[in-house]
Amino acid sequence: MIVADSFEQVRSVVTGKAGLAPTMGYLHEGHLSLFRAAREKSDTVVASIFVNPLQFGPDDDLSRYPRDLDRDHRLAEEAGVDVLFMPPVDEMYPVPPATRIVLDGVADYFEGAYRPGHFEGVAIVVAKLFAGIQPQSAYFGRKDAQQLAVVHRLARDLSFPVEVVPVSTVREADGLALSSRNRFLTAPQRQQALALSRGLLAAADAAEKGELGGLALESLVIAEVDDSGLDLEYVALADSATAQPRAILEGESFLAVAARVGETRLIDNVAFSVEGDLVTVDRGQTLEGPSVLEEE
Amino acid sequence: MIVADSFEQVRSVVTGKAGLAPTMGYLHEGHLSLFRAAREKSDTVVASIFVNPLQFGPDDDLSRYPRDLDRDHRLAEEAGVDVLFMPPVDEMYPVPPATRIVLDGVADYFEGAYRPGHFEGVAIVVAKLFAGIQPQSAYFGRKDAQQLAVVHRLARDLSFPVEVVPVSTVREADGLALSSRNRFLTAPQRQQALALSRGLLAAADAAEKGELGGLALESLVIAEVDDSGLDLEYVALADSATAQPRAILEGESFLAVAARVGETRLIDNVAFSVEGDLVTVDRGQTLEGPSVLEEE
Repeated sequence: MIVADSFEQVRSVVTGKAGLAPTMGYLHEGHLSLFRAAREKSDTVVASIFVNPLQFGPDDDLSRYPRDLDRDHRLAEEAGVDVLFMPPVDEMYPVPPATRIVLDGVADYFEGAYRPGHFEGVAIVVAKLFAGIQPQSAYFGRKDAQQLAVVHRLARDLSFPVEVVPVSTVREADGLALSSRNRFLTAPQRQQALALSRGLLAAADAAEKGELGGLALESLVIAEVDDSGLDLEYVALADSATAQPRAILEGESFLAVAARVGETRLIDNVAFSVEGDLVTVDRGQTLEGPSVLEEE
Repeated sequence: MIVADSFEQVRSVVTGKAGLAPTMGYLHEGHLSLFRAAREKSDTVVASIFVNPLQFGPDDDLSRYPRDLDRDHRLAEEAGVDVLFMPPVDEMYPVPPATRIVLDGVADYFEGAYRPGHFEGVAIVVAKLFAGIQPQSAYFGRKDAQQLAVVHRLARDLSFPVEVVPVSTVREADGLALSSRNRFLTAPQRQQALALSRGLLAAADAAEKGELGGLALESLVIAEVDDSGLDLEYVALADSATAQPRAILEGESFLAVAARVGETRLIDNVAFSVEGDLVTVDRGQTLEGPSVLEEE
């Protein structure tokens, strides 16, 4: 595995079809599933690790975002990454960019509303990675459902010749969606946090049994979150492509939730696909044992 | 010469280093000088012709922008273009883009102030051409001095691996900068329009003789324009990289003017480079006989 710190170096070592998995590091099995998906379709798998300051707001957790570069290096290499791109901030932003990329509509609600400026930061860093690395395919986790919609739209609107590939959420054996931020949770908070996946999975069950009402599905999540003592930000059913709220489950949709426990903000979702009377749910994949995040 | 109507087709025929010259068609010697500059540095020269609706405001001249595709085809082929990319609007914008690219600072003054939204339109179409064609070099005329600053900044901020190459303005024998919009000028208007280049060239002479004051240089242009009866929009000395106004001639600068004659809006500029006491001016290159625009 080659470690690169500049776009030019990445381009100089890529051969054939490049598959890109952008991350902020502190890798876990969710990231590894991106790398493995990239491995299947690519000649050169490029993973990036960059904690992008522009996607953090003033009240966000940029300064305490977890880092463990030795473990990241080992995990990326084991998962078949060919090029690990770890740019310093001054490679990505040699000067503060004058260019802003704004997505209307798709970035308006949910994360866009609760984290002003977040998707502008995501958009510019993803655009830079697409422009500077020129991947044929790029892998993003379904856990960030709205980000996936933003990236799909960005790639299409700017004519990047890249296939944006969604990869299922990975969950701990008890249902908690993997997140680098899980490491901030105390044992009691971690128990509380299970309300998110419990609520979403209950809604997934109800949808498979024919419940298509957005409010009804959202209520199942709200009930679990309220009981748990988490501080709920939003629960919403939305169109997967446009990230606009939906009243009725149809087409490609996601049911997303965001909540705070103490200082930590958690998000999770399940993805639905409705064809005729058939409702298919992507609940994510569940690990059999503890994730690498639980190892310390 | 291959005529392509999709990004995919362009990518499929490009070999080696691609040089891109984006245009809006109705080609003249200014465009041809872009193609020839591209020819020198590229294995495949791609010229695009696309009258981009997003860079025209509601009061601009989109509907009457001149077109002559047969002549364009002939001139492009003669100038050594390998691929002529003429995308229909629905290849560029299959749906109205949700993505907006905004440049702060560099797009604030001059054209940015007089044509609100213009540089957002320029930025998205140039970003799409860079993303979809992946050129190693791209050629833009110095006549659009602020656009050149915008494109330089966009390419850098988004990490496109493209060299943005400025190409000198081309002028008719009497000094008028070539522009597809010149065809709208009546004979008397064309005489009036000469005030722009006369003023700029007078300022260039003064600068070479040591006049470094922005107001003094601007005054030389204003005097000519006022005498001519043109409707002046702005005259400004600006930093070539940031497109911010400058009070004193230094470093890389341009002196730009915009004015209306009847329904037609004209712009022109000269570019300065100051090193120590030495002032070098790019006045553009002057044709010996009438341009192809005068042929009809």
